[in-house]
Amino acid sequence: MIKLANDRLLRALLREPVDVTPVWMMRQAGRYLPEYRATRERAGDFMTLCRTPDLACEVTLQPLARYELDAAILFSDILTIPDAMGLGLYFSAGEGPRFERTVRSRRDVEQLGIPDPENELRYVMDAVRTIRRELDGRVPLIGFSGSPWTLATYMVEGGSSKDFGTVKGMMFDQPQLMHQLLDILARTVTDYLNAQIEAGAQAVMIFDTWGGALSPRDYREFSLRYMEQIVAGLSRENEGRRVPVILFTKGGSGWLEAMADTGCDALGIDWTIDLADARKRIGDRVVLQGNMDPCTLYASPERIRTEVEAVLTSFGHGEGHVFNLGHGIHQHINPDHVRVFIDSVHELSARFHQ
Amino acid sequence: MIKLANDRLLRALLREPVDVTPVWMMRQAGRYLPEYRATRERAGDFMTLCRTPDLACEVTLQPLARYELDAAILFSDILTIPDAMGLGLYFSAGEGPRFERTVRSRRDVEQLGIPDPENELRYVMDAVRTIRRELDGRVPLIGFSGSPWTLATYMVEGGSSKDFGTVKGMMFDQPQLMHQLLDILARTVTDYLNAQIEAGAQAVMIFDTWGGALSPRDYREFSLRYMEQIVAGLSRENEGRRVPVILFTKGGSGWLEAMADTGCDALGIDWTIDLADARKRIGDRVVLQGNMDPCTLYASPERIRTEVEAVLTSFGHGEGHVFNLGHGIHQHINPDHVRVFIDSVHELSARFHQ
Repeated sequence: MIKLANDRLLRALLREPVDVTPVWMMRQAGRYLPEYRATRERAGDFMTLCRTPDLACEVTLQPLARYELDAAILFSDILTIPDAMGLGLYFSAGEGPRFERTVRSRRDVEQLGIPDPENELRYVMDAVRTIRRELDGRVPLIGFSGSPWTLATYMVEGGSSKDFGTVKGMMFDQPQLMHQLLDILARTVTDYLNAQIEAGAQAVMIFDTWGGALSPRDYREFSLRYMEQIVAGLSRENEGRRVPVILFTKGGSGWLEAMADTGCDALGIDWTIDLADARKRIGDRVVLQGNMDPCTLYASPERIRTEVEAVLTSFGHGEGHVFNLGHGIHQHINPDHVRVFIDSVHELSARFHQ
Repeated sequence: MIKLANDRLLRALLREPVDVTPVWMMRQAGRYLPEYRATRERAGDFMTLCRTPDLACEVTLQPLARYELDAAILFSDILTIPDAMGLGLYFSAGEGPRFERTVRSRRDVEQLGIPDPENELRYVMDAVRTIRRELDGRVPLIGFSGSPWTLATYMVEGGSSKDFGTVKGMMFDQPQLMHQLLDILARTVTDYLNAQIEAGAQAVMIFDTWGGALSPRDYREFSLRYMEQIVAGLSRENEGRRVPVILFTKGGSGWLEAMADTGCDALGIDWTIDLADARKRIGDRVVLQGNMDPCTLYASPERIRTEVEAVLTSFGHGEGHVFNLGHGIHQHINPDHVRVFIDSVHELSARFHQ
């Protein structure tokens, strides 16, 4: 078992005692950091940054050089999977991610192969290995993937969507075809996350960014079910340690109980529910990760501290909390405010663990 | 008391017996209708359509000529209020609504006047009067306004926003200034809705489109509180009838109990909660309006009927339900599908009222 200098995150995810609440941020390696923007410019474009292990490693480590973060998270994109399936990912200015080919017919679905993570997605695994080597046991590394439903929205719509008309039309009218697509994606994500674990990821998170656009019934049938399938197929131990799994559905606060029943170790929580209420509903079944409104970081340092205190107080005493924002950090946040945020979590949380 | 040929909506909103469940659609006068697009083109631009009572009346009545809808809703825009306050509303292609002037400082807030509905917003009241005359008692007319919080997001950001960084930064750092702005808006909305009622609106709805972007605590303090203030200030009777008030917070299914306590008659419900669960939580305190996923209308007629049945079954037997989509109808919906939807609600709901 590799010794970690700081194993707070893993301890918290397994509900073991910690001195202070661990904290990291979704999208912590990102555009709010000038050094990220510099590396991104050097790379030329976003996908080159993702596809070049040394550059992905560089940006992964940048926030750790600035802040006392308790985890690193692999720098990558959820759309590496459909890209590896041959859909031709590209980024167009102002429009976000786009695919050259969409997946809408039976023929489209049948032509999809399950990519070999150490072949088509080897650049991701190489990034994981490089980051682990460079981290050298400072903090754990989190791997991640998009959820099958979330990936399917991009693959069917051909990119980002505001209202999901095409993918939901397919879901309503051709549920069997949608299930076929989601099953392929679930198997792909399982292989992908297992390969990340094998390459060195010490915890993994599934991002279900668009599960909250579904009704409760459709969420259970078309999103949650496939995340459960993935959780059941993951290698949960590596290097002598348990590898915790975190599920996050943005807008999913209505269904936390069902999410907790998937066999995951922790739930990501957005800021539309009080942690006190989430804890009341979930009890000790899983750990809760979250949930400060990312817009808090636009406020003054004093106000940021007050909000950190409010989130800590809402969760209350005892183990089972990983501090995070309720969604990814925004690009226009002042990096100095991030330091106040991270340091406040450590300073103010000690009394909740006595 | 003016006799309505079809008073199902008002009866349902007051929990009186109905033969079938009444149905209308948010944004029912809109871009999915070719006749709307023709009138809009004739008007030249969107605001001319809003500002010309005869044209606003024309588009308001268009969906009623096609479908057996149980209500008309005033064609207008929630941003008429900040426009009347002097912010200079305009629409730029691809960017949506924009304001020439934003409201960010104490000076900006102090300069805001409360518009006189029969003066700066007279075109809206004239539209209400014209529509009532042309409706001639066929179905009731619903008036509406944006909520103070929702209006404030546009006024502070200067238009639509993805992450509400500026308005939330102001909320966190200058809560007193934000409250001052929201109080001005609450008084303006109260006057505006009372004038619509006086002009002939037979029910009113408050659209809190962006309340769901707030944490529960901030929602109560910065959105719900001001909707409660408005509800308390409304004339609830006109022409010998009670004027019901409907509150709708998109993404608000976590806070239905608090919304029901505002004194409103009904809650708009989006599709992220089962009506059965919403009814269990709210009981008979208020009527529920909703909540079919608007994307259902992309599906086949057969599937649309199945979904209508599912929503009716979820609410169950008895009074207290107004059928609607969970959000506005999308622009690319086939108008023939809308007919299937409306007719299915009437055909399939009779047995729930026996």
